Amino acid sequence: MIFSARVLLATIAALLCLPSAVLAMQGDEAGRSVSSPDGRLVVAVDVTGEGVPQYGVAYGGEMVIAPSRLGMRFAAMKGFDEGFAIVGSSAGSADETWEQPWGERRFVRDHHNELVVNFAADDGRSFNVRFRAFDDGIGFRYEVPAQQGYDAVTIVDELTEFRVAEASTAWWIPSRGWNRYEYLYETTGLEEMDIVHTPVTFRMPSGIHLSVHEAALVDYAAMSLKQYRPGIFAADLAPSATAAGVVKKGPFTTPWRTIQVAPDAAGLVNSDLILNLNEPNRLGDVSWVEPGKYVGIWWAMHINDRSWGTDFIHGATTDETKRYIDFAAENGFDGVLVEGWNTGWDGDWFNNGDVFSFTETYPDFDLREVADYALSKGVRLVGHHETSGNITNYERQMADAYDLYEDHGVRQVKTGYVADGGDAKWVDDTGVAHYEWHDGQKMVNHYIHSVTEAAKRKISINTHEPIKDTGLRRTYPNWITREGARGQEYNAWGQPPNPPEHTAILPYTRMLSGPMDFTPGIFDLMPNERPQLEGAAPRHSTASRVETTLAKQLALYVTIYSPIQMAADLPENYEARPEPFQFIRDVPADWEESIALAGAVGDYLVIARQERGSDDWFLGAVTDEEARNISQPLSFLTDGVTYRAEYYLDADDADWETNPYAMDIGSRAVTSETVMELPLAPGGGAAVRFYPMNDE
Amino acid sequence: MIFSARVLLATIAALLCLPSAVLAMQGDEAGRSVSSPDGRLVVAVDVTGEGVPQYGVAYGGEMVIAPSRLGMRFAAMKGFDEGFAIVGSSAGSADETWEQPWGERRFVRDHHNELVVNFAADDGRSFNVRFRAFDDGIGFRYEVPAQQGYDAVTIVDELTEFRVAEASTAWWIPSRGWNRYEYLYETTGLEEMDIVHTPVTFRMPSGIHLSVHEAALVDYAAMSLKQYRPGIFAADLAPSATAAGVVKKGPFTTPWRTIQVAPDAAGLVNSDLILNLNEPNRLGDVSWVEPGKYVGIWWAMHINDRSWGTDFIHGATTDETKRYIDFAAENGFDGVLVEGWNTGWDGDWFNNGDVFSFTETYPDFDLREVADYALSKGVRLVGHHETSGNITNYERQMADAYDLYEDHGVRQVKTGYVADGGDAKWVDDTGVAHYEWHDGQKMVNHYIHSVTEAAKRKISINTHEPIKDTGLRRTYPNWITREGARGQEYNAWGQPPNPPEHTAILPYTRMLSGPMDFTPGIFDLMPNERPQLEGAAPRHSTASRVETTLAKQLALYVTIYSPIQMAADLPENYEARPEPFQFIRDVPADWEESIALAGAVGDYLVIARQERGSDDWFLGAVTDEEARNISQPLSFLTDGVTYRAEYYLDADDADWETNPYAMDIGSRAVTSETVMELPLAPGGGAAVRFYPMNDE
Repeated sequence: MIFSARVLLATIAALLCLPSAVLAMQGDEAGRSVSSPDGRLVVAVDVTGEGVPQYGVAYGGEMVIAPSRLGMRFAAMKGFDEGFAIVGSSAGSADETWEQPWGERRFVRDHHNELVVNFAADDGRSFNVRFRAFDDGIGFRYEVPAQQGYDAVTIVDELTEFRVAEASTAWWIPSRGWNRYEYLYETTGLEEMDIVHTPVTFRMPSGIHLSVHEAALVDYAAMSLKQYRPGIFAADLAPSATAAGVVKKGPFTTPWRTIQVAPDAAGLVNSDLILNLNEPNRLGDVSWVEPGKYVGIWWAMHINDRSWGTDFIHGATTDETKRYIDFAAENGFDGVLVEGWNTGWDGDWFNNGDVFSFTETYPDFDLREVADYALSKGVRLVGHHETSGNITNYERQMADAYDLYEDHGVRQVKTGYVADGGDAKWVDDTGVAHYEWHDGQKMVNHYIHSVTEAAKRKISINTHEPIKDTGLRRTYPNWITREGARGQEYNAWGQPPNPPEHTAILPYTRMLSGPMDFTPGIFDLMPNERPQLEGAAPRHSTASRVETTLAKQLALYVTIYSPIQMAADLPENYEARPEPFQFIRDVPADWEESIALAGAVGDYLVIARQERGSDDWFLGAVTDEEARNISQPLSFLTDGVTYRAEYYLDADDADWETNPYAMDIGSRAVTSETVMELPLAPGGGAAVRFYPMNDE
Repeated sequence: MIFSARVLLATIAALLCLPSAVLAMQGDEAGRSVSSPDGRLVVAVDVTGEGVPQYGVAYGGEMVIAPSRLGMRFAAMKGFDEGFAIVGSSAGSADETWEQPWGERRFVRDHHNELVVNFAADDGRSFNVRFRAFDDGIGFRYEVPAQQGYDAVTIVDELTEFRVAEASTAWWIPSRGWNRYEYLYETTGLEEMDIVHTPVTFRMPSGIHLSVHEAALVDYAAMSLKQYRPGIFAADLAPSATAAGVVKKGPFTTPWRTIQVAPDAAGLVNSDLILNLNEPNRLGDVSWVEPGKYVGIWWAMHINDRSWGTDFIHGATTDETKRYIDFAAENGFDGVLVEGWNTGWDGDWFNNGDVFSFTETYPDFDLREVADYALSKGVRLVGHHETSGNITNYERQMADAYDLYEDHGVRQVKTGYVADGGDAKWVDDTGVAHYEWHDGQKMVNHYIHSVTEAAKRKISINTHEPIKDTGLRRTYPNWITREGARGQEYNAWGQPPNPPEHTAILPYTRMLSGPMDFTPGIFDLMPNERPQLEGAAPRHSTASRVETTLAKQLALYVTIYSPIQMAADLPENYEARPEPFQFIRDVPADWEESIALAGAVGDYLVIARQERGSDDWFLGAVTDEEARNISQPLSFLTDGVTYRAEYYLDADDADWETNPYAMDIGSRAVTSETVMELPLAPGGGAAVRFYPMNDE
């Protein structure tokens, strides 16, 4: 290539002046910047000499997003790329508090300033970008009004960029690989990043933490970030199997592109930005959406005690289900998940979703009998639909399948889309199969379709192998939880299983998007070392084990938020350890408030949550492979009240690798003045329940 | 996700049995395997239980490509993905030797066995894969016959995979980034690779070297490799700005997918596989395609002594061009390149190819005068067309532009496509601009169009910012060289400049695809430390310098093949060092034979080449940042002949960093029995000319 001196000089000048450029923009002209209510965050908007729209973000006077491109290009008409001027803008602000039907906190404050910038070109092209600046970050989205020639567009390239300080550290998982989101997080400098999923978290050299993600992903392809130049991450929309890009008709808006900003890691965890950028509840009365805890016929398959199909020892039998129902009823669980109840599991279901019926049961599973038995015990079945990523087979049966469950009192269905990345299948009207990414526009729409169809039957959906969460639970509160990261199951057969740091990274990355059905609570930490059952599939490698202490399994109920939490292990393993099991019996799944108290990405987290409609608090703390002693002030407790703290701590000699079961379980009186010592073992954790002593 | 025991067992079994699987396939059924003429390479073909076509490759009994998928999917019809059986096959072989009009060697032997496998599905879908097994690797391509419903297809996914041993080391550059191919090569394990360009080179744990690339890329998108699972690299076709994939009409064939295999690094360099998989010369008499050496008004711009436009000191003036013509004539150069002769360089040409005229000269450049002056001196002007990647502006002017050069005796034109990756521009009939990757289908076709249009005027094309080379020089011998990697120019302004290892990696990676206009021969190794000329643009950072010894600059004329080689430095810098300059005067650019003698990727290379139509040989050796002493047998020389060896070696105390000019220049008598000591300094090299002493 060739490189002119003039261009080089301009580039250097631009690089040198970036921080002042954005800050200067703020003051230069009205209508080109917006600040957060506390004034710390500033978004500035401008166009380059070529009329390329760009924005930048500063936080506390420090540039956090250097001037970055905005725009999009289309397959068949002029792009929104250059030749634009800012022809108008409007400002506004909002400060309202809304109530979640369930969530990490009951009341969420949406306090932001808004700026809508109108970009137009001489030839009539126009679009708007709506920015919202909150104290905890910013969001912006494109709003494309009706205009001549743009009634139907195919967006081949969204030009949105995020320019991040090159010396930052990042926590990320790759995008466009064989898996969807179930990778171990990488902790690297930017130079090792190519194309990554969001949320992606950055720690800048100054210590400021950023997370880039999106909110309200509807009828659009998910945005990954492609590092195009060092430090410049460009939006990379999931491809379509049938179109050159994202297909939109009429005026449209994109999902919100979000940048959460906090001075420290815990600050990210306390952000409500993603929820605030979603539309309010569209379902009306959602009292039928019920947070709670469940057990199920699930882990037994992962450790090969049972099988989904009838090839080894079938798990989903009437008798076995009743056994779980009895256990659930005795221990206060709300639901019993049953996987492998429907026909289709005996063939090669892994690559062939066509095999599944969602209404036909295996002969040894009497749906009516177990459903009625459950209801008689005050428990509900939790439904299960594995699609193998074949959405056509699922959609064809969907009404009947949800009707069937509704008829049997089922209020929650766990769905599954096990297919490799790029291999989610649909069949068009001519019988031709197409294969999509799980986060492509077609699949985005399918997942929402399943949620809205389920809502008609008062059924909530727990999506596995999902599209990533973008906060749509606010709009559709029956989208109650989902997977979308490496969960507990990897500890049964993963090579490697989840290392201790995994659950010290998730809260700062995946969990910023929303709840996760991680399925904590494994009590037999080395199941693959047990003797194999006669007739069962062989045990997995003993290298696959749970790399936590038992105390950390309890802590996960607090550190990893989900409104429905599984107690994932076998009933007999809980019965064998009643003392620690008491914490699982006690811990709720719905919260009045949540406060991340301290933490560092990949190292540790301490979080406290107040039970919804109660004075009780729960604390969870997790560490990575390092032991650490945390002196935690309990200032979140109500002043002047004495609480009993029932604690489940790692014993002095506990260690995930050598002595994982050693626990110090007890109780003591504490107040908001108390500084509680939390001794975290390597791979360890701490779980504490607090309740006012006058409740005793 | 969930994971059935059955699937896991099948997966493990498949993994364990892979080598025997491919080898077993070989013997199982006729028509499903093909071996190289020497029997060392075996390609086996099969379908899985689901009817998924796959192939594998073994070399000397070792699996080099584990069973890997074949197939493709379309936007609007059933894919060639599963449900296929092998319904027929045909075998053949060829052994012919063809002559290159110019090249690394005059005669190329094409000796291969061939297997065409016919895949068909019950519903009538059918396609063929043609495999060719050579001693130095294999190639295969899809051949899609005419069939109902497939008259026009959009290929949204080519399913071709290459499964490589996970413990391999790779040398690669990223794909889909801002640059095209001008990256420093990475030397890593597979875990750091995401999406990479080809050729990509692997060294397996056994020491076997592989290079995956493609041949004869015509009317198709270039293939990058995306590591989809660990060790599984999937074809990733460059996207289109207007279609969902590669658009093909009627029956079609794809480019050849190639895997060069050699027991050592030097073996890769000696491979002719890519050329052998291209179609023969379509241009007939190409005696007007003239290998040779050139100088030009070029480096002066890169070091900011001159400028392309008139903003600083304009380089392309009539007087300056005549000065270069005089120098060329005096020193035996064939051409003088002049960049910046045409209008358009004074604006923001970097992002705006519309500014360029390809027929209008700057007022201070008299094309007729300099062209005639050159011809009177036995020299030809070398033309230059920088397009900034705007192919519409170029194509509109192309006929006039080539006519103009033809009228002035120009036989070679250097073209340029400086635009970021994904930003090569074309404008459709409705005036809408589209932006493509340089290696997308649209651009692939444009580059060939420029070559065939030029051929009509007996003009050869030297493409900068090109599509990667895939051997099309065999078919279009006027596509004489190209850039397509980080060249010498980065030593003027690169941050960082090319490190010493760069030229010890290129021969094993980029150069496997074909010639490169690297432009060696910089004699002033620290130009940015010179005083700035009055009126010139400021010097670049002194951190940008040439990280070689002077001897290595000479060696590059032998180690980096190009049929047109530039002596890139300013005439005065050569005049200041006449002794080493003598080698550049002597070294030819066209060869009778080339033999890579020894080397290791990223460490060093020793190569010998015999001058076309002469008994003279030339040897080049380069090392990375490590000094090394090579004892090189001269067995390539004709037995019984005594040669004079004129050597240009690093002096004992030479070092690229501290003492780059120190050379040991001299001559001695040698024979094919001689073992010549080549002392390579850190960042050093060696250049030797051998000629029979009876010629003296």
